[in-house]
Amino acid sequence: MAQFLNSISPDFEAAFTALLSMKREDSPDVDDAVAEIIADVRDRGDQAVIELTSRFDRLDLTPATLSFSAEEMDAEIAKVSDDDRAALELAAQRIRAYHDRQMPEDAQWQDAYGATLGWRWTPVGAAGLYVPGGLASYPSSVLMNAIPAQVAGVERLVICAPTPDGVSNPLVLLAARLSGIDTVYRIGGAQAIAAMAYGTETISPVDKITGPGNAYVAAAKRRVFGKVGIDMIAGPSEILVIADKDNDPDWIAVDLLSQAEHDESAQSILITDDQDFGNEVAKAVERYLETLDRRSIASASWRDFGAVIVVQDMDEALVLSDRIAPEHLEIACADAEGLAARVHHAGAIFIGAWTPEAIGDYIGGPNHVLPTARSARFSSGLSVMDFIKRTTLARMTPEALRAIGPAAERLAQSEGLEAHGLSVRARLDKLNS
Amino acid sequence: MAQFLNSISPDFEAAFTALLSMKREDSPDVDDAVAEIIADVRDRGDQAVIELTSRFDRLDLTPATLSFSAEEMDAEIAKVSDDDRAALELAAQRIRAYHDRQMPEDAQWQDAYGATLGWRWTPVGAAGLYVPGGLASYPSSVLMNAIPAQVAGVERLVICAPTPDGVSNPLVLLAARLSGIDTVYRIGGAQAIAAMAYGTETISPVDKITGPGNAYVAAAKRRVFGKVGIDMIAGPSEILVIADKDNDPDWIAVDLLSQAEHDESAQSILITDDQDFGNEVAKAVERYLETLDRRSIASASWRDFGAVIVVQDMDEALVLSDRIAPEHLEIACADAEGLAARVHHAGAIFIGAWTPEAIGDYIGGPNHVLPTARSARFSSGLSVMDFIKRTTLARMTPEALRAIGPAAERLAQSEGLEAHGLSVRARLDKLNS
Repeated sequence: MAQFLNSISPDFEAAFTALLSMKREDSPDVDDAVAEIIADVRDRGDQAVIELTSRFDRLDLTPATLSFSAEEMDAEIAKVSDDDRAALELAAQRIRAYHDRQMPEDAQWQDAYGATLGWRWTPVGAAGLYVPGGLASYPSSVLMNAIPAQVAGVERLVICAPTPDGVSNPLVLLAARLSGIDTVYRIGGAQAIAAMAYGTETISPVDKITGPGNAYVAAAKRRVFGKVGIDMIAGPSEILVIADKDNDPDWIAVDLLSQAEHDESAQSILITDDQDFGNEVAKAVERYLETLDRRSIASASWRDFGAVIVVQDMDEALVLSDRIAPEHLEIACADAEGLAARVHHAGAIFIGAWTPEAIGDYIGGPNHVLPTARSARFSSGLSVMDFIKRTTLARMTPEALRAIGPAAERLAQSEGLEAHGLSVRARLDKLNS
Repeated sequence: MAQFLNSISPDFEAAFTALLSMKREDSPDVDDAVAEIIADVRDRGDQAVIELTSRFDRLDLTPATLSFSAEEMDAEIAKVSDDDRAALELAAQRIRAYHDRQMPEDAQWQDAYGATLGWRWTPVGAAGLYVPGGLASYPSSVLMNAIPAQVAGVERLVICAPTPDGVSNPLVLLAARLSGIDTVYRIGGAQAIAAMAYGTETISPVDKITGPGNAYVAAAKRRVFGKVGIDMIAGPSEILVIADKDNDPDWIAVDLLSQAEHDESAQSILITDDQDFGNEVAKAVERYLETLDRRSIASASWRDFGAVIVVQDMDEALVLSDRIAPEHLEIACADAEGLAARVHHAGAIFIGAWTPEAIGDYIGGPNHVLPTARSARFSSGLSVMDFIKRTTLARMTPEALRAIGPAAERLAQSEGLEAHGLSVRARLDKLNS
């Protein structure tokens, strides 16, 4: 049973603050082990990756079998049912259509002195996507990571997806192919991250690594950051639903459970302005929890981290929502659109009762890789922007330099950087000679 | 004397690779010390900050004097000369004009089924800018960090700028005021980063921390990352100049030195298609080094990390340039514009001989906070984008859900996420009832 909070209760602020600062993750300290693995891969390349894969995934590979051959991929992909294939194709198409619109424009203009200024966007050269093995091997994650990279124009895209005991996921391989990726390495863990960051005899290094993973993968990504770019280190998933009483409690209950079933550390919160409705939803959650396949996970999440918060009105709901800065925010209220427009901090908003969050996980179009643990205060979900970078451009004319050069020289002098000033002065002298 | 490389020499590839992988930074391991400082500030707040400032900066503060009062700022700013003020104002105005153009547009559209999709940009709530004390206390850095935040619409902007022995930099305070910042804390080091990330009794926490700093500051930023957003961890500065023989060797020499004088770990590289011109530039560098104020720093940088690379043609120059992925790239050649358009990886390009890199440091308009150490392969300089974040939006209609909902349900089932599927199914059942 989740906790109930009421904003008019005298201890509400304390309880809400406690809810906000709950430590949900018990990340084991694997940093030393990861440092060793990375050093080993840098040192011994393929051989280290092969030995580590044998040890952790109980799978014996050779340099030639580190990646799936085209025939192996074909054979695996052939196992996908027509229904699954059609669903994945529709998802890929919609995700691509959404991300196509994210590509920003280059810019170039002249200032009043005739200087040309601007910037240009270029894709990263190579990107590597990590896809966890086992239970968390999600084909939807492949699409969400790979398609933005593909839209960005990344030339070389590879995947590392461990196949413990040699068991691979045909849908993951199909998702790779739908995203234009031919190279899928069947390796995982810190060794996969190290191989992508530093390269081995067989695996060319990449410039950027994205994708979710366990504690080892997360620690490895932190360590190789700087050598390569990484996306965020994602924490457990969260949903906040703001709903008024004119909703079917069952719909809201199952929306809350769609996060809770991810992970015992996931967090589902309902904010409503109607106490009775809150009670109805909580009852419906308990009912679903009796039969849900993943009920042990979902129950633990709902019991330990779930909450129903009753507020006086929706203005108050928005204030609390911004303090939570939720990864996923569902607004199922009258004037949902108007409320959504007033939200400051959220990874993704699902507007209106006909938009369950699960639509965003799979098929809506927006990315499902979103900022967790209140980081929507300062960061965004994955997008095309994560796979491009901006080069700024400046071209002075003699006239422009004459106009603004003396100020640059002055500032250089005031900062004690003589050569900076001289580089401008040499040109100004020529102009004046 | 810098090293000379020639691309037709048989050992060129080995020498160039060695140049690329030179370890220029000897970052001391201060991580344990920093962890202690952060824990102390989290634990004891103001009192810890005050004691650490007394110890490291030999300055005794109270909670009331942690920040400059308006009168103190006025008095310091009054010391700035008219020339310096005018130069700084011109710089602020040009930097603002450039960054004003970076604000991206929100987007909203309807798909074929009537679903509304889009995204909205919002500023981070509060940002903290770090400004080093002592020799590296650069007013230009204040403008380059603060103005993008201001343009982004960040509501609360503060600065931490240590004043060792109580000595402050009037230009830094003027730059703060020109950027709309009224709150300047005279604290530095890891304690300042900790105070901004976690807050103290006097200092409200921020959501994002940017700005350069020493090893302690860098280590502290790494540690608080996740709790707050940070910008990149900048390495020593670099410049690559691509120049043909139709240049004044003196101009190119002093451009190279304008990076070398920053730091003994800075790196300046010239690529030219004319051996004699390369020799002339190297001679000019030596001549300048005889008299330059910061000659001991610049000489060490040029000797240890400088290079002149002779290539066969400018196509080859571009290939090498992309492998270097320079922070600053100056192109002083015939068809500089055409060459610049072909560059894939560079933080900033300065096009044509009339555009010394120093213009970009101060007054051109583009940001001078740029990716170092080859990270231009995957990251961009500081911009308005660093102070905003995107919330994705989706609103289904019943018709849209009817069209795409079944595929979402299918994918949820294939990933074993039953509640995800049920959240869609509950609505589809209602539609079909």
